[in-house]
Amino acid sequence: MTRIDHPESLKRLAVQLRRLPGIGPRGAERIALWLLGGKDRTRSSDLSAAMLQAAETVHPCPECGFLTDAPKCAICEDDTRATGPLCVLEEATDILPLERTGAFRGRYHALGGRLAPLDHIGPDDLRIPGLLSRCRVTPPPSEIILALSADVEGEATAHYLAELLRAEFPKLPITRIAQGLPAGGGLESADELTLSRALSGRTQMS
Amino acid sequence: MTRIDHPESLKRLAVQLRRLPGIGPRGAERIALWLLGGKDRTRSSDLSAAMLQAAETVHPCPECGFLTDAPKCAICEDDTRATGPLCVLEEATDILPLERTGAFRGRYHALGGRLAPLDHIGPDDLRIPGLLSRCRVTPPPSEIILALSADVEGEATAHYLAELLRAEFPKLPITRIAQGLPAGGGLESADELTLSRALSGRTQMS
Repeated sequence: MTRIDHPESLKRLAVQLRRLPGIGPRGAERIALWLLGGKDRTRSSDLSAAMLQAAETVHPCPECGFLTDAPKCAICEDDTRATGPLCVLEEATDILPLERTGAFRGRYHALGGRLAPLDHIGPDDLRIPGLLSRCRVTPPPSEIILALSADVEGEATAHYLAELLRAEFPKLPITRIAQGLPAGGGLESADELTLSRALSGRTQMS
Repeated sequence: MTRIDHPESLKRLAVQLRRLPGIGPRGAERIALWLLGGKDRTRSSDLSAAMLQAAETVHPCPECGFLTDAPKCAICEDDTRATGPLCVLEEATDILPLERTGAFRGRYHALGGRLAPLDHIGPDDLRIPGLLSRCRVTPPPSEIILALSADVEGEATAHYLAELLRAEFPKLPITRIAQGLPAGGGLESADELTLSRALSGRTQMS
């Protein structure tokens, strides 16, 4: 008895789709079948065209790493942000969420990752030379804000950068974003580490 | 103040990705950014190539509608299934789930949809002539099993087909798959309609 299954090329498409973030095996199969369906069967070609166009026009800003279709991104082009704090992040994709908060009006610098010795990611794999050059301009940034993940690798990266920056720019204030209770989160749902950080990071009430 | 956002082509890619089944706005943005990332930036082109190849090689089986890369699908080519029951489904994508149960060894016929007057889908939009031709062969199918959705439109389609088939093939047995409690479902989680159908569809215990 032949085992009935999808054609090979359909299965290969599902394998490619499984690589997408957030897509499991069932989702991949469902999307593959959807892509091959439709009245005029233009779903695949529409998506291909959009991917090709985006890949051709979008590239990281040479200054901060934010994705842009211009020589420099709109944030780095904005002269009103020229002097002020510089916010250091792991990924360029962290910029827009921070920007959408409206709480920050400085510039950004995406490292392109964080130190992760187990994954063989060391300082040379990150955009650290670019960060140092951006601290050497005149006037220098008013402050370096480290907005890195609240996990072991994020901590290690923050400490490494703080040490490096302090050595070359002893007068430059270096801060990092707060760790504590997430908005709307009660004490009962916070884990011990979050609680201990929220406690040690307590601030004076005004 | 300029509102900072992703480049236009990136947003257009996210719009295309939002059309995929099961992908919401955040998922689409995440996938779009992932597609443009990666060391050698081949993610988009890998996916494009797989889509193109699948679209070129895969087509519906002219007999039953199942997706195949051969002139006829493996189920229709399988002579041991030639005589026996014919299972009628709405979509070709319903075939593999049924096939994987191992409970059915006949052939299938996908209608390509179901009657839905509100969406302007009438009998002429479904593969009904093909179904009638497949009942006219010698020997005819031993039974027509209607495996359509358990909702209003599935019901309407089943009744329409049953009437049509009975008129031309009065001796052909026509059945439909059972409705009742889903496996593992308790009575307390079943809705009234499911319960009333489970009750009226009760079978003699052996």
